[in-house]
Amino acid sequence: MSVTAAAGFSASGVACGIKGEGRADLALVVAEPCVPIAGAGVFTTNKAAAAPVQVSRAHLAASRGQVAGVLLNSGCANAATGQAGRAAAERSAGEVAGLLGVGPESILVCSTGLIGDPLPLDALVSGLPTLVSGRGPTRADALRAAQAILTTDTHEKEVVVEIGGAVIGGMAKGAGMIAPNMATMLCVLTTDAAVSPELLQASLRDAVGETFNQLTVDGCTSTNDTVIALASGRGPALDAGALTDGLTQACGALALALAQDAEGTTRVARIRVVGAASNDDARRAARAVAESNLVKTSLYGGDPYWGRIVSELGASGAAFDLDRVRVLYGDVLACAGGTEAPHDHAAAAAALSGRMVEITCDLGCGSGAGSVITCDLGHGYIDENMKTS
Amino acid sequence: MSVTAAAGFSASGVACGIKGEGRADLALVVAEPCVPIAGAGVFTTNKAAAAPVQVSRAHLAASRGQVAGVLLNSGCANAATGQAGRAAAERSAGEVAGLLGVGPESILVCSTGLIGDPLPLDALVSGLPTLVSGRGPTRADALRAAQAILTTDTHEKEVVVEIGGAVIGGMAKGAGMIAPNMATMLCVLTTDAAVSPELLQASLRDAVGETFNQLTVDGCTSTNDTVIALASGRGPALDAGALTDGLTQACGALALALAQDAEGTTRVARIRVVGAASNDDARRAARAVAESNLVKTSLYGGDPYWGRIVSELGASGAAFDLDRVRVLYGDVLACAGGTEAPHDHAAAAAALSGRMVEITCDLGCGSGAGSVITCDLGHGYIDENMKTS
Repeated sequence: MSVTAAAGFSASGVACGIKGEGRADLALVVAEPCVPIAGAGVFTTNKAAAAPVQVSRAHLAASRGQVAGVLLNSGCANAATGQAGRAAAERSAGEVAGLLGVGPESILVCSTGLIGDPLPLDALVSGLPTLVSGRGPTRADALRAAQAILTTDTHEKEVVVEIGGAVIGGMAKGAGMIAPNMATMLCVLTTDAAVSPELLQASLRDAVGETFNQLTVDGCTSTNDTVIALASGRGPALDAGALTDGLTQACGALALALAQDAEGTTRVARIRVVGAASNDDARRAARAVAESNLVKTSLYGGDPYWGRIVSELGASGAAFDLDRVRVLYGDVLACAGGTEAPHDHAAAAAALSGRMVEITCDLGCGSGAGSVITCDLGHGYIDENMKTS
Repeated sequence: MSVTAAAGFSASGVACGIKGEGRADLALVVAEPCVPIAGAGVFTTNKAAAAPVQVSRAHLAASRGQVAGVLLNSGCANAATGQAGRAAAERSAGEVAGLLGVGPESILVCSTGLIGDPLPLDALVSGLPTLVSGRGPTRADALRAAQAILTTDTHEKEVVVEIGGAVIGGMAKGAGMIAPNMATMLCVLTTDAAVSPELLQASLRDAVGETFNQLTVDGCTSTNDTVIALASGRGPALDAGALTDGLTQACGALALALAQDAEGTTRVARIRVVGAASNDDARRAARAVAESNLVKTSLYGGDPYWGRIVSELGASGAAFDLDRVRVLYGDVLACAGGTEAPHDHAAAAAALSGRMVEITCDLGCGSGAGSVITCDLGHGYIDENMKTS
């Protein structure tokens, strides 16, 4: 059910011709009945933020977190498109608002696809009447929306979690240009919880910080990253703790789904750093390992070359004493005291052979801990990204 | 002639059995006559610095920059090898010193190869008598040394430059685990210039900062990076400006040679950023583009997808106004005012088709400029690095 699982939401997805060949490329999530409800957003930190990011930020600010709907398109990022791109994003929001009978500033917009191409506004606008009139609350409606936002993803990503009697549903897309330390990719979350826009924004930011921002596919921060949350208030009130926990569960599940479906990936690893001088140091060290092309290529080869991991830990800037470092592949201790530990090499290789692997690094310096999810780097990534056309 | 081009140096290279199969793996550069002369070194910033780096740093400090020789081995990095590794590095320096009749602290040591393997000290020591007795000043002697330090390099890297009547020669190796912001890879430079250890150290640091530190192959900072310079004083005195210029020329040539022979590379790019708010901003922005896996993969595909470049500039942290950005492939203006500029796409692709390409990014924010050299990311890199054994 994803974005329509919680009471008070409808969704829709159509093919309007942006992608061509009849492929779905336009999605809508709407509050039902269609009046503005509590909304929040976390956006890319990239200073080359795309037109829809600029417009959505402005609308959220103007409406003080009152959102009636989210329009999303795939097939074009509407990024690096100048003033014309901003006008096109505004126009698309305005057209949807007119059809829904709400103010334009209550509509948020998201785009994903190639950077630099102009938004095919005529095609987009031509698809809006069917998109709006065809919306509904069923599983099939939500699935059509989740499918219409995909690019190089191989399947839709949806989630539903329940917490404190409230329901949180969500959909996401993302398969490349994904790095932590920002709101990553496109994601829309809906809940029936009764919460204020301010609480929703704070909890969403915390949840994103713990999940999407701890994910790296290729270390590249996109121009279009957007995570939006809408709360209909049709269900129970949630306090900040419960809301953050629920959103973190939903975002965590979607983040893992993104990693598992990342461009060309064959293997996903959770890099866990413990024994760091601080939690910040742990995340810094985990990120250095997770973003290392050499570590990622070893991961692709299923090769437990722990020396590359130790080298990245040492280069990360985190507090570090080589003589205290331990590295484990799954449960296999491959490195202790900063040098090779006697171990069964076949067991270490076996711990790296699955689709999802765990690598633990103990810095032996304190009690800080943190983890980052990453993907391997193999031939599939090269094939996917060497040519855009 | 490389490291023996300047008067006052001999070199040697042998196969001592570290690599096996009769492959050369042990090299020596010696001041002639064999007494300590001015020496300087720049080492990795990685906190997991290898045993030979720790030993060389200590020897340079103890001798106050008086160096008689440099022993280098390939086939083993002697990194993450604990106290035993440090003892092995000390022992190898001591054995060479004994054979040369100098104090052990006047010998520097460098290792390159896989991290975590113990140094095969018996093999190394067994090769030392032949290495020491076979040294000489000829082109062939220098070539044998340059060949003995190679790992996945496909050919030796040598340089000779002349400046102010003095000669600077050098050799280097390096093909992976190369990133800027440190002294990168192994490199030995020799000159007949009459300069103090302090001047040599200062000029070497400046030269490395302008050359090796502006090179990135895979964004990975090695445990073993070392650049050493020796000055015999047999030639003319050089002032700081001339010495730095000469060392910068030599290091720049070797840095480019490293990039061109990087693991699996098919194409090298100079990313030049101009119009930045400061030189620091320009380098930060250039590095973000140069280290982007998406940009590097586009480079491999010869695909002028300027949107990825704009995205990396925006994510780099440098002062940035999207509406002022221009991107050029060679002389072809692909992006202006932050959006696509009318241009001949075939000409842009042609500008990306060579072995060496130039990409210029104008941020339109000021007069800061800087450049970084990078390599493409393709199937060859994956094949080279997915398995270490």
